[in-house]
Amino acid sequence: MSNPILVEVTRGNIVESRHRGAVCVVDGDGKVVLELGDVGRPTFPRSAVKAIQALPLVESGAADAYSFGDREIALACASHSGEPEHAGLAASMLGRAGLDHTALECGAHWPMRQEAALELARGGAAPSALHNNCSGKHAGFVCTCAHMGLNYSGYVNAGHRSQQMVREAMETVTGAAHEADICGTDGCSIPTYAVPLKNLALGFARMATGVGLGAERAKAARRIFAACMAEPFFVAGTERMDTRLMQAAGGRIMVKTGAEGVYCGAVPELGLGLAIKCDDGAGRAAETMVAAVLGRLLSGDAELSGAMRELANPVMKNWNGIEVGRVRPAGALAS
Amino acid sequence: MSNPILVEVTRGNIVESRHRGAVCVVDGDGKVVLELGDVGRPTFPRSAVKAIQALPLVESGAADAYSFGDREIALACASHSGEPEHAGLAASMLGRAGLDHTALECGAHWPMRQEAALELARGGAAPSALHNNCSGKHAGFVCTCAHMGLNYSGYVNAGHRSQQMVREAMETVTGAAHEADICGTDGCSIPTYAVPLKNLALGFARMATGVGLGAERAKAARRIFAACMAEPFFVAGTERMDTRLMQAAGGRIMVKTGAEGVYCGAVPELGLGLAIKCDDGAGRAAETMVAAVLGRLLSGDAELSGAMRELANPVMKNWNGIEVGRVRPAGALAS
Repeated sequence: MSNPILVEVTRGNIVESRHRGAVCVVDGDGKVVLELGDVGRPTFPRSAVKAIQALPLVESGAADAYSFGDREIALACASHSGEPEHAGLAASMLGRAGLDHTALECGAHWPMRQEAALELARGGAAPSALHNNCSGKHAGFVCTCAHMGLNYSGYVNAGHRSQQMVREAMETVTGAAHEADICGTDGCSIPTYAVPLKNLALGFARMATGVGLGAERAKAARRIFAACMAEPFFVAGTERMDTRLMQAAGGRIMVKTGAEGVYCGAVPELGLGLAIKCDDGAGRAAETMVAAVLGRLLSGDAELSGAMRELANPVMKNWNGIEVGRVRPAGALAS
Repeated sequence: MSNPILVEVTRGNIVESRHRGAVCVVDGDGKVVLELGDVGRPTFPRSAVKAIQALPLVESGAADAYSFGDREIALACASHSGEPEHAGLAASMLGRAGLDHTALECGAHWPMRQEAALELARGGAAPSALHNNCSGKHAGFVCTCAHMGLNYSGYVNAGHRSQQMVREAMETVTGAAHEADICGTDGCSIPTYAVPLKNLALGFARMATGVGLGAERAKAARRIFAACMAEPFFVAGTERMDTRLMQAAGGRIMVKTGAEGVYCGAVPELGLGLAIKCDDGAGRAAETMVAAVLGRLLSGDAELSGAMRELANPVMKNWNGIEVGRVRPAGALAS
């Protein structure tokens, strides 16, 4: 089955490129509000589910023990751009458990934001694991281990207690089995499991509403989502779509991107969760898809809906700043 | 009409992302050898046709007047990585006409190769138009104007004599009309025209064989292709697919990528030209498509064909160097 074309990229008067994908929006009971394409296809959520993966950090008491506030919890859910504030806060999280960047097993890479990478190079520095876009999540894993008295070494492996807790949270919240045959390795070396897109949407609806979660988990979920919505810079970074969407919405939406064209999100006031996968893995298309879906879900609020639709239709400029085309919703998303 | 899935990206045992596209291979008379997907769809070739756009540089006598050898002509056909050798040679080309980087109208950007950008930053420098991946092409335009006694100011505009010569070459060689209604603006600000994929393949077959071109144009075309095949580093750069494919083939294939998932190429010994467009614009997919097509066309040479197939199946590693998946040909390209 072919997923529909949901995003077009234009140049002049011509459509230059096309992106297909699937979209699922459900409530906390799994009732479908919007379904485009194959929402049953197994999909690696990648970093889009970091907020669910952060549940053990809060539920274990580690976040409280180390006095983590909204910023630290947001960073634990982040794919950050490696800006100085991100790397510094990850170091601070580790420091509160008496640790440093050498405890992280995510690997090092230059900051995702080019300006941050260039600034590091200008200073003659090299990146550490703190600049890895996943360093906040990994700091959360390590701090959870430290608080629980677990040896954190090897915490990225599927057999480690840390990842077992993450898997339990993922299974419970999404309602999908996470078995070895659907397991892949993520960019930061932890396991990632391919589950149906509709289960990812359900997971985010449950995180937003608490439906189907125990009281303690529901409380932790609300705290995590509230932290991300309160500190969107720490979930992504300067000029990033997650940050821009959440800043525009002022605490009314939660969104998180994942590699290979994934988005998960929620609109708590509507009790809805959403999940999106661009077939070809393009981030630009997933960004337009999520902004267009949010614009539609929030159509009752003309101003907010308009802001979402504007973010769904970015202008592309060339090296001389000349407008050359647009990315825009297409097909069922264009209406 | 849907183009077929031609490339898959795997993670663990699961297909994570899928790329659709179209492929056309023809001889100099336009006889179809391979056709996958819609090869009649208007396609912006972008940088993939720089070798055709370089014809006026050679035909005008400018290349000889300024003693341009294979490296300079290759750079005029390049989307280079902004490495010091690339930027330096672009400056040298301009210098031979008594000009410098201020004559270029392509805009400045940081080198495409991250290591080159970081090295520039370490030295406290900023990029100039020489680091723009199109600086060699633009140096060629400017030098052609200088040699012909034309005012080069505004040479990027469709109405300038420089672009009129380029358009004439493109129309003659591809056999497709290049009218204003199919014109877009490229990343470096010159016009780009959306023409059927089969015409782009025909253009490359004609460049390789001389069929349908006048004697002088055929000679210029052969010289340009020979220069690119002799100096593949100057057509792209370190670790780039164009460079690797041409280095592996030792002068037996010509390939050139264009933005938004385009490839054009030729196998002169077979008298064939090819053109590829990945629907969604992904470079990784276009790279696998072109390498897979070349592997098939060259199946009579087991060693070279094997090298192409290996380049068509790159392993993806994460930040810790762990293999997490592959990009691989799919569907009609997998056989």
